Amino acid sequence: MSTARTGSSGHARPRDEAAEHIECYILEKKLPPHAKLPSERDMCSMWNFNRTTLRSAIKRLIVEGKLYNRKGSGTFVAPPKLERDLQDAMSVSEAVYLAGRVLETRLLDRQILKADRHVAQKLQLEEGSSVFYLRRLRVVDGVPLMIEHSYVDYSRYPYLERYDFYEESLYSVLECYGVGVHHGREEVGITYTTEEEAQRLNMEEGQPVFYLSGVSSDINDRPVEYFKSVVRADQVRFSSVLTR
Amino acid sequence: MSTARTGSSGHARPRDEAAEHIECYILEKKLPPHAKLPSERDMCSMWNFNRTTLRSAIKRLIVEGKLYNRKGSGTFVAPPKLERDLQDAMSVSEAVYLAGRVLETRLLDRQILKADRHVAQKLQLEEGSSVFYLRRLRVVDGVPLMIEHSYVDYSRYPYLERYDFYEESLYSVLECYGVGVHHGREEVGITYTTEEEAQRLNMEEGQPVFYLSGVSSDINDRPVEYFKSVVRADQVRFSSVLTR
Repeated sequence: MSTARTGSSGHARPRDEAAEHIECYILEKKLPPHAKLPSERDMCSMWNFNRTTLRSAIKRLIVEGKLYNRKGSGTFVAPPKLERDLQDAMSVSEAVYLAGRVLETRLLDRQILKADRHVAQKLQLEEGSSVFYLRRLRVVDGVPLMIEHSYVDYSRYPYLERYDFYEESLYSVLECYGVGVHHGREEVGITYTTEEEAQRLNMEEGQPVFYLSGVSSDINDRPVEYFKSVVRADQVRFSSVLTR
Repeated sequence: MSTARTGSSGHARPRDEAAEHIECYILEKKLPPHAKLPSERDMCSMWNFNRTTLRSAIKRLIVEGKLYNRKGSGTFVAPPKLERDLQDAMSVSEAVYLAGRVLETRLLDRQILKADRHVAQKLQLEEGSSVFYLRRLRVVDGVPLMIEHSYVDYSRYPYLERYDFYEESLYSVLECYGVGVHHGREEVGITYTTEEEAQRLNMEEGQPVFYLSGVSSDINDRPVEYFKSVVRADQVRFSSVLTR
């Protein structure tokens, strides 16, 4: 029985068969992250695929974050993706720390703005209220993973612009004001990278990425932060616990 | 302040500005689902964009499920996406029913297979055990939304192939055996449609889609179903409640 996405119905396309062969090969040989795969020529003759099919399979596995390419030196087994629990309102800093990885935050923008209708509604403010806006690039183990946009009620958290947010997480700074994040609600979609996002995330423009957006609230259900993130799907996977 | 994904930093690209104008226009005019947008020419002159920029913006909004095109007749406001709660182990049938929509299930495949290593591990079975495999296309309000692959331990649920699964949900059939789904765990990723999936889902091959996979378990934490789904991101959005 097949482990490919197309199931075991015998309808698998050559590309999916080739991808399956590669995945089984990695499992059976117990290849660790960053191990090099055999050459394209060798894989083609091992499984009797043509070069186009094999390349197409490799491309799919790269998109799914299972392999990566280094120009001129071949194809390698990708390290496991960063897993983020969709039920967990913990900050990115906490999640990355708990995964034993190294987080670097780059500040892309930080300013005080007037809330437009959309942001005002999300934060339950009057349109035109002062809002602190923060845009950060998150880099984990040297790989740019996501761009995060945060909007916070400035009148409730004045002088937020004094913090640099390189070392300090937004949530821990907000807690200094005596009002922290208690719970939230988020939505997951897919979008395409813009030119700027692609450049920051070291991707090509127009590639699919996760688009997360939501609101974090305090213990009284009052909105604290409205956030939007663009997240690389080849680097992060989202998990969720289901209950009935 | 901008509602576009690029935030309010003044770095927005023309395409994103155009998309923002269209979204604001829909909000301000309170256009309902299936309302027709002005012609491309009119929108270009309203906001002073060139045709290429406007088309690129419309394309992005179509991918995000906010607009749709009907050939020769223009661009329309899309109905709201089906929302699925990522914490909820309820069946697709229940979720669609609760959303007040009409579900149609098309059976693509149904057979008894020998579990390979991967499926055996997911269901905590011996490799080679008999497994019931079901592949279904889910169509909501006439639109194909997702392809679902299900694997169930056949020795625990014998004669499952007698059910047709057009009218009956898998979960309600499993409950007839006295062992229902109690909780589960799933992961959300992005993949590209294969040729067969694209055809079934009425999309182009190689378009990005959600890829869900996971295991549903009974009250004793014994696996009941291993599932994999390919879900149209322009039709379904996933939501999640966050707690700290």
